[in-house]
Amino acid sequence: MQNVDEDTITQIVLARHANAANPRLKQIITSVVQYLHGFARDIQLSEEEWFQGIQFLTEVGHITDDKRQEFILLSDTLGLSMLVTALNNRKPRGCTESTVFGPFFVEGAPVYENGADVGNGAKGEQCFVTGRVTGLHGEPVPDARVDVWQADSDGFYDVQYEDTERAYGRGTLRTLPDGTFNFRSITAESYPIPHDGPVGRMLTALGRHPWRPAHLHFMIDAPGYERLITHVFRSGDEYLDSDAVFGVRSSLIANWERHKAGTAPDGTVLDGPFGTLDFTFVLNRIDPGSGRIK
Amino acid sequence: MQNVDEDTITQIVLARHANAANPRLKQIITSVVQYLHGFARDIQLSEEEWFQGIQFLTEVGHITDDKRQEFILLSDTLGLSMLVTALNNRKPRGCTESTVFGPFFVEGAPVYENGADVGNGAKGEQCFVTGRVTGLHGEPVPDARVDVWQADSDGFYDVQYEDTERAYGRGTLRTLPDGTFNFRSITAESYPIPHDGPVGRMLTALGRHPWRPAHLHFMIDAPGYERLITHVFRSGDEYLDSDAVFGVRSSLIANWERHKAGTAPDGTVLDGPFGTLDFTFVLNRIDPGSGRIK
Ligand SMILES: [Fe+2]
Ligand SMILES: [Fe+2]
Repeated sequence: MQNVDEDTITQIVLARHANAANPRLKQIITSVVQYLHGFARDIQLSEEEWFQGIQFLTEVGHITDDKRQEFILLSDTLGLSMLVTALNNRKPRGCTESTVFGPFFVEGAPVYENGADVGNGAKGEQCFVTGRVTGLHGEPVPDARVDVWQADSDGFYDVQYEDTERAYGRGTLRTLPDGTFNFRSITAESYPIPHDGPVGRMLTALGRHPWRPAHLHFMIDAPGYERLITHVFRSGDEYLDSDAVFGVRSSLIANWERHKAGTAPDGTVLDGPFGTLDFTFVLNRIDPGSGRIK
Repeated sequence: MQNVDEDTITQIVLARHANAANPRLKQIITSVVQYLHGFARDIQLSEEEWFQGIQFLTEVGHITDDKRQEFILLSDTLGLSMLVTALNNRKPRGCTESTVFGPFFVEGAPVYENGADVGNGAKGEQCFVTGRVTGLHGEPVPDARVDVWQADSDGFYDVQYEDTERAYGRGTLRTLPDGTFNFRSITAESYPIPHDGPVGRMLTALGRHPWRPAHLHFMIDAPGYERLITHVFRSGDEYLDSDAVFGVRSSLIANWERHKAGTAPDGTVLDGPFGTLDFTFVLNRIDPGSGRIK
């Protein structure tokens, strides 16, 4: 019989999974056990600290429901989500980089024609967005599906409002034959992630703020290309260097131009200032030989 | 501005905690981030696997309530609880080793005199337990507080029954002037940990069973000595080599003697077979110089 002690326990736990049927699961649990035990040994975790960890995870579990995912928030704020995004989206230089998906995408957003107002009544300064979807060699990608979603000027996504079913600042478009798309919406503003729960208390204890720099979310799908999930960030934002979820890649920062009241790109006359943004998204071709379909 | 990518992200996350006020918390979060990121890199965690992990933790959180602690069960079944116990209870050779506390201790158990029936009506074969509490050099420890708790022959602790407030197989005694104690109870049997939730499904997927070998729980406190939290396991149990929570240390296995119907150690005449158990618990003196009070 093997004696379980601090020196033998890791090997004893790993040996217990000899009969795991799924080889990938066995590989994952082996790594989980090694890194979890490695952490406890490295830090010489006390029994009280262990229990505080159990209580913290319990609170994260109890605040999580259909609308709020505090475990994803925890993964985001520890940089795990962004690391997983980076590990799984290696691309040739020149392709648009990926960043975190975030919790606010919704299936079945309204479908809009190019030129439409995706803001759909969201609060904020008007903004006119033009985009272009290409392959790595500049070839236009027509009829690509472009999903866009964003917060309003109060820092909330539509799904964070309890009292409405209306989709604000969220929609699906298709690129035109030349690979371009365009829509009207509102100017993105920085916003704090939900921080009234255990993750918010963790950030406070760590001397961190909960803010994300202003951004638009994009998800772009086209046959023959890898799905692109990314943001476009607004240059000059004070939180670009301290995004609470570590999603900023310098290649994703764009200049939002601000214009005085007057005639907007779509010909309407606006009585307040408005913004414009132009960005090119470069998709990665799926290698026909790799069998990788996303 | 630093570009966040798979190579830079860990250092960027760690740098974000430069202003954490509590140095121990900073040390812990640094280790959490390093080991968490190390795990994701080691296994090249896919986005789908990450999401399955989020869903698993969400289920663990949702089944956890005041009566059921699935996060502790998860820690137990991954060997983390036992590792933390081992790391925090290093003792001179000759002292009784510690093992996991488990989730079934209850504050305010009934206080019994020596010789009393701690079983208090629990289902199972009668068992007579004698114990002795000493220091490392054999000196008796009088008036030590001895908490004992155990499952019944159906594998359940009293707190797992919804329909009773009665304390079965659970009580507090004091050692006599010679350091001994004795009580009547029932013979411990092996039992499965709760396995109708996500941790049970995890064990199944890993090819593991949920059983723990038969044991009595003890917690012993005496002034001048470190608290001892341990089990006494029953020799011959089929699960001694595969305890679902990795709590077995060979020094904690004792021989339960089985006797035919007849006169029991306390003089009562029993019409069925019964067991006896004798075990010596050796406490570790608190070093007066170390300032360590438990
Ligand atoms: Fe966002
Ligand atoms: Fe137990």
